[in-house]
Amino acid sequence: MSREQLTKIILPEDKTPRFWYNVQADMPNLPEPGLNPQTKQPLAPADLEPIFARELIAQEVSTERFIEIPAEVQELYRQFRPSPLFRARQLEKALDTPCRIYYKYEGSSPVGSHKLNSALPQVFFNKVQGIKRLTTETGAGQWGTALSLACKQFGLEAMIYMVKISFTQKPYRRSIMELYGGKCVASPSTLTESGRSELAKDPNTPGSLAMAISEAIEDALQREDTNYSLGSVLNHVCIHQSIIGQEARLQLEMVDDYPDIVIGCCGGGSNFAGIAFPFVPDKLAGRNIRLIGVEPAACPTLTKGVFAYDFSDTSGLTPIMKMYTLGHNFTPSGIHAGGLRFHGESPLVSQLYHDGLLEAVAVKQNATFAAAMIFAQTESIVPAPESAHAIRTAIDEALQAKEEGVSKTILFNLSGHGHLDLYSYDRYLSGEMEDIEFSEEDLQESLKSLPQI
Amino acid sequence: MSREQLTKIILPEDKTPRFWYNVQADMPNLPEPGLNPQTKQPLAPADLEPIFARELIAQEVSTERFIEIPAEVQELYRQFRPSPLFRARQLEKALDTPCRIYYKYEGSSPVGSHKLNSALPQVFFNKVQGIKRLTTETGAGQWGTALSLACKQFGLEAMIYMVKISFTQKPYRRSIMELYGGKCVASPSTLTESGRSELAKDPNTPGSLAMAISEAIEDALQREDTNYSLGSVLNHVCIHQSIIGQEARLQLEMVDDYPDIVIGCCGGGSNFAGIAFPFVPDKLAGRNIRLIGVEPAACPTLTKGVFAYDFSDTSGLTPIMKMYTLGHNFTPSGIHAGGLRFHGESPLVSQLYHDGLLEAVAVKQNATFAAAMIFAQTESIVPAPESAHAIRTAIDEALQAKEEGVSKTILFNLSGHGHLDLYSYDRYLSGEMEDIEFSEEDLQESLKSLPQI
Repeated sequence: MSREQLTKIILPEDKTPRFWYNVQADMPNLPEPGLNPQTKQPLAPADLEPIFARELIAQEVSTERFIEIPAEVQELYRQFRPSPLFRARQLEKALDTPCRIYYKYEGSSPVGSHKLNSALPQVFFNKVQGIKRLTTETGAGQWGTALSLACKQFGLEAMIYMVKISFTQKPYRRSIMELYGGKCVASPSTLTESGRSELAKDPNTPGSLAMAISEAIEDALQREDTNYSLGSVLNHVCIHQSIIGQEARLQLEMVDDYPDIVIGCCGGGSNFAGIAFPFVPDKLAGRNIRLIGVEPAACPTLTKGVFAYDFSDTSGLTPIMKMYTLGHNFTPSGIHAGGLRFHGESPLVSQLYHDGLLEAVAVKQNATFAAAMIFAQTESIVPAPESAHAIRTAIDEALQAKEEGVSKTILFNLSGHGHLDLYSYDRYLSGEMEDIEFSEEDLQESLKSLPQI
Repeated sequence: MSREQLTKIILPEDKTPRFWYNVQADMPNLPEPGLNPQTKQPLAPADLEPIFARELIAQEVSTERFIEIPAEVQELYRQFRPSPLFRARQLEKALDTPCRIYYKYEGSSPVGSHKLNSALPQVFFNKVQGIKRLTTETGAGQWGTALSLACKQFGLEAMIYMVKISFTQKPYRRSIMELYGGKCVASPSTLTESGRSELAKDPNTPGSLAMAISEAIEDALQREDTNYSLGSVLNHVCIHQSIIGQEARLQLEMVDDYPDIVIGCCGGGSNFAGIAFPFVPDKLAGRNIRLIGVEPAACPTLTKGVFAYDFSDTSGLTPIMKMYTLGHNFTPSGIHAGGLRFHGESPLVSQLYHDGLLEAVAVKQNATFAAAMIFAQTESIVPAPESAHAIRTAIDEALQAKEEGVSKTILFNLSGHGHLDLYSYDRYLSGEMEDIEFSEEDLQESLKSLPQI
């Protein structure tokens, strides 16, 4: 079918990529090495072995361009991959824009988001190494849900530390994790030293991803049979998510198109990396393509943070990484896009942004939900609040192009559906949503917590 | 690919049926004619025109085997159709059954259920006739959600009367309807005479589908620009849903398979009709195939009701139809599968059941959720409580076949996902779910309300 007829573009299963793409093979500058949190010396693989599977550590520093997806993972991918690419015809009509807008829809996975793309291989590589149990943190609950399911599928236990404010506000996120067999507690919890220490400081803390990471790592360090798993930020997660952009690229080829602009929402960076990294080689080769990460104005890591060595958690248990950061003591305000409430940023995204290969914008909460409403009422899918950040910028770019009288091809990642986030829409519809201002003072205070290297 | 390799079977878009299948062309006995609620004489099309679009009335009595799907509806179907057919390999493994189990997944539509299949054409046929506003009732909220979205897509207003107990228990169902632009009130409401009269009788009534239907019809009768829309029961709805079974049949052909057993959950009958009716001609031609509708033990219309003329609503505004019924005064207990809480049954399903072409079983709530848990933990998708009824019977049949040492091909309709029903899973996981007993006394009392014909 021609480009003008197709709405939903389905990649034939036999064209599905069998390899992940690793941007480390093509970067002009690799990220600075991670540092051991105690010695502050460059990390050796052995430093990571107490908490990560060896194959994942190898991927972390690999410069192989393509990494084969294990057959066991491919088999499970097949249930929800390739994911559909949609031409947003109704949205285009509503905006009256000359642009062609496409979205890659990752909400069609059984957990409703892109997170399963990395949960499955992470659990698999741990399983082959004999690990019986994985710990992790979760913010909005998307990652915890994906890890619970992946653990159930490979027969491992999942232990999830969920940021307290989300645990309280979103009880059904916990239900779905438990339904998949995972165990989920509010973080900070009394189960770990890190948690108890945070609770002693402030018994009413809403928690943060950084605190929950501390708890999950501490738990994993206690038990031989237990490793830790992270749903974003790290290089191996970006590698796994590359399946998104690789598929999208092939799907656009099917309709003889290619993007001028590629957009993803950006918290830890994994879904933005997933859609954008497979296009980096083209940009390096001189192709005119813009790759834009969209973050919440309340947690503007790339647009307002500093490029510095920092921890990913509050207790200083994680490796120290060179990344854009608001400081690991920064507690992002309680915006509805819980998955984007993270002070740091993927080192790969950070380096590429620093080198001018990626762009970033920050958008406010009400403008984001306004975009989500336009999208839902035209394209029918209710987007997750996180994904709505990408929609906001896609709409802004399409309107900008219209004003300039040019037609552009815009591709964005619709990383998940919002059927578990209707509480947030309720707030928006009843006019009770606030645009929380970002505080420069808080930032300056938090940046004092950066480790001295 | 061979049958043994494929997990997800995708029908190529150009093979998608362009026609709905109408079982009225093939039934050995057509249903008895509907009766005018006032005169109790056979309905003339003109009797229905105050509330239904003419094309839908024509479909109601059509005996054409195939009815063309309008291009405008096909275009919108294309976003979510053809829906995937899955081979349930993980479930088969867990049950250790020699059977092949397939499920047609309708939860991949943007509203998360099969209801959009009929909402789109219903709104379309009303629009071409100049109707500006549609009223309807909704139980669990699936139908109201689909109608809201369809109205938004064609530019009509949607007014939804939602059964009060669901309105209270499931606030997010209301959010999603409003997000799509629909207006939603708890029923009984004070907006209609029917509603006020029910509230006068019992201000604390949980409401019922039958009451909500009365309100929606009364509203539609008040305004020239307004029609009424029903999400199940009627012949035209069963016709629209036939797309499900037609696609499934073609998808099974792609892997050279054919079902011995076809299963759907059964409330008003539309999703069961959708998956089962396209196989009726084969059964009539002597093929050995079983078509099983699964209802809740708390609302066992086919298995314990009577085959008689009855109203679909409490106030006696609907046509009187010959169907299996528990009596229109029967208030089903508040089970979690709200979409199956209906005293009556599609006249087409009823007649075919009466003639021995369809079977029915009733299953209890806890056994149903137990099946849902097995399914979620193997096949990854969290099923809607309604759809879980079909899963329960699919599992029972697969285990029965295993005991008998035979291999069967089982096809069931997974009519929706359960991401908006996690409250119910929470109750099940915490051991607080009850198996409400069906009361023969209540039934006998309710049957006294059958109209004298």
